[in-house]
Amino acid sequence: MTGSRRDPSSAGGSIVLKATNITWHKGKIEREDRENRNGHRGAVIWFTGLSGSGKSTIAVEVEKRLFDIGAQCYVLDGDNIRHGLNKNLGFSPEDREENIRRIGEVAKLFADSGLLALTAFISPYRKDRDGARALMEQGRFIEVFVQADVDTCKERDPKGLYEKALRGEIKEFTGVSAPYEEPLQPEIVLNTMELSVEESVQQIMNNLAERGILGV
Amino acid sequence: MTGSRRDPSSAGGSIVLKATNITWHKGKIEREDRENRNGHRGAVIWFTGLSGSGKSTIAVEVEKRLFDIGAQCYVLDGDNIRHGLNKNLGFSPEDREENIRRIGEVAKLFADSGLLALTAFISPYRKDRDGARALMEQGRFIEVFVQADVDTCKERDPKGLYEKALRGEIKEFTGVSAPYEEPLQPEIVLNTMELSVEESVQQIMNNLAERGILGV
Repeated sequence: MTGSRRDPSSAGGSIVLKATNITWHKGKIEREDRENRNGHRGAVIWFTGLSGSGKSTIAVEVEKRLFDIGAQCYVLDGDNIRHGLNKNLGFSPEDREENIRRIGEVAKLFADSGLLALTAFISPYRKDRDGARALMEQGRFIEVFVQADVDTCKERDPKGLYEKALRGEIKEFTGVSAPYEEPLQPEIVLNTMELSVEESVQQIMNNLAERGILGV
Repeated sequence: MTGSRRDPSSAGGSIVLKATNITWHKGKIEREDRENRNGHRGAVIWFTGLSGSGKSTIAVEVEKRLFDIGAQCYVLDGDNIRHGLNKNLGFSPEDREENIRRIGEVAKLFADSGLLALTAFISPYRKDRDGARALMEQGRFIEVFVQADVDTCKERDPKGLYEKALRGEIKEFTGVSAPYEEPLQPEIVLNTMELSVEESVQQIMNNLAERGILGV
């Protein structure tokens, strides 16, 4: 997946010093340079859905598939965000909004660096998700609605969170005591009550290829 | 700079499905997988110095050199941080501290994704820089002190900021009306009153090679 160099005569492009076979960039490295090198576009793949719907599981499997075909990719999730960048945020409405805002901004930076950034957060509010989308150029924000009804998620309850929420030990828990606003026009919908993880991953990979995000 | 695959039998490693020549990752993709692919380590190269000392200029030139040898790299600077992730921060002491804290956390995420993250911010306080350093494993935080005295920076004054600060139009301007705390033990010192940009870049590239950050 090594990409072709840009036309050396184009503005902001590169010239090849033939004697040394070193490419010398005149301007700042641009996203396009990175994309040509990586063989795919920089973009944000934004997973949204209830706790237990399968966001993280699918995101991590997509990351593996992407890595294995040579793509540069990275998952942003609770593990690397909540204890780091967003450790000074709680769960008030303002803090939840700021949580998603920062994630959107960081995902944008990753996409600008040429990576495929996969974000796996409940992100229950349309307004917040649309804010993250608005940061990106059209076609570079892929919203993936990971769909499973509350009863199914309660049954799965991999972290025992629904049980705690139902006992009132967690307040404002999405799907129990706080709303989840389903995406109106997501790029991809994965009904995980019917699709296997493998089928979900394949659907995303196909979609990325169709959109021209893979195979630049 | 394509790296070698990890031992397939190692924990968290990969196995090769011989029939299809596809590598299948059992566990989550780890930084080591990314580094083997990229041919270099993920790390943070943290430029600090007065406004006008040459931080951004040198960081951008290092980025070009790194890109041209095939490395994955990205510059975080005022352009992509202040109007994005940190647009809700001002210049109060708390906000300045939070500004650098967030930059340190984002740089860490980039390093975890296998990239060389170059940060170019005045970052005048030792405590804040040490906070960013403390997030990283030893050897993965390269503090570059870009050294030029205030008089030299005033003369350069590429953005006319010193002039404004001296007229009192910018308050708490580092080097004029706010302190700059020089690094005590930076990994690299570049005296830009004596070194050319090209020499500065070369010094950093040599240093990265000596530390084993390049050429994994």
